[in-house]
Amino acid sequence: MAFQQQYPSVLLESAVDEFSKLPGIGRKTALRLVLHLLRRSEEDVLRFSDSVARLRREVCYCKLCHNISDSDTCEICSNPSRDASTVCVVETVRDVLSIENTQQFRGLYHVLGGVISPMDGIGPQDLEIQSLVDRVAAGSVHEVILALSPTMEGDTTNFFLFKKLSPFPSLRISTIARGVAVGDELEYTDEITLGRSILNRVDFAESFHFSSDNK
Amino acid sequence: MAFQQQYPSVLLESAVDEFSKLPGIGRKTALRLVLHLLRRSEEDVLRFSDSVARLRREVCYCKLCHNISDSDTCEICSNPSRDASTVCVVETVRDVLSIENTQQFRGLYHVLGGVISPMDGIGPQDLEIQSLVDRVAAGSVHEVILALSPTMEGDTTNFFLFKKLSPFPSLRISTIARGVAVGDELEYTDEITLGRSILNRVDFAESFHFSSDNK
Repeated sequence: MAFQQQYPSVLLESAVDEFSKLPGIGRKTALRLVLHLLRRSEEDVLRFSDSVARLRREVCYCKLCHNISDSDTCEICSNPSRDASTVCVVETVRDVLSIENTQQFRGLYHVLGGVISPMDGIGPQDLEIQSLVDRVAAGSVHEVILALSPTMEGDTTNFFLFKKLSPFPSLRISTIARGVAVGDELEYTDEITLGRSILNRVDFAESFHFSSDNK
Repeated sequence: MAFQQQYPSVLLESAVDEFSKLPGIGRKTALRLVLHLLRRSEEDVLRFSDSVARLRREVCYCKLCHNISDSDTCEICSNPSRDASTVCVVETVRDVLSIENTQQFRGLYHVLGGVISPMDGIGPQDLEIQSLVDRVAAGSVHEVILALSPTMEGDTTNFFLFKKLSPFPSLRISTIARGVAVGDELEYTDEITLGRSILNRVDFAESFHFSSDNK
């Protein structure tokens, strides 16, 4: 079996090569995408390639929260109706979008850019940790919500941040609730999640807090 | 539920828009791909966008078989060791790659660019049918192999081509064998395929034709 296809054109081959470097895209899918682009108008394809090049060249990151932005302060950080005293710490820009989509959080964010992972060679100095400490030291932040992935790396990072932030006496450090997902059946929930959800049980009256916000 | 996410940057939004126009790529996947590109070096990303733009601007099609090519005659058509008397008619460039991968065909191709499909408004004049008739009329083609999809549109196109090509008395018009796929179990083969494979049965001794070529 020949695994490396012979492409009839080097231009086609290089486009397929580039597409197949994207995550989750193999050479067959890459070829399908490239042949699709070839059937579109030249204007459409140039708009596609320009939007990618412009994004990479011109993208800014918010100097406060390190979210992607069109200017040096993002829309969330510069919005006066948001609660600047609460900062939610997340790993990536995608997590900001996910939390924004819930419409349950009115505070600001702090994008770390990842989690501490010695296996991948990512230490605290590679993340936006010092800038978080500086933000808290500036004095206007009253609560930091840690919203990292429930993985070993996420927990390590949580613990590191907790140690860095605990010297600030009036700061509340919280973490998002872990538990059985809404709509999930207990039978199919893993033991660790189910165990934590029992240990961290909440008063029944309080458990309607978020649902009543939605009404 | 908010289906339209609020992106923190118009640059990001336009890149996600462009990626999500590709087939099989939704907005979530598009965002993942775009954020991946943002983490790559500027050089990498510009190589990606350039390869797409260059392909669309500079791609050629072989003037003989209409396959994608870097010049006006493709590598297959200009290869003197290939059998120019046999032409395999396929729908798309991808089909050429698939057949080339089998390493069982040494003739030339003719890429129609699709099949006749009145539902999609594709008539014979939208396809490279006249140029096929012209190729045959030029005299050096002895056999045309029809290798279109076994769909209603493919069969319609086969029949149309057959009528156009039957005036050439010495031309053999063949079609690729339909039958039970190698490795498939009879139990799970659909009735139409199984029925055709019985009607079009071949002599047992002949059935080893291709396998012996492989040895």
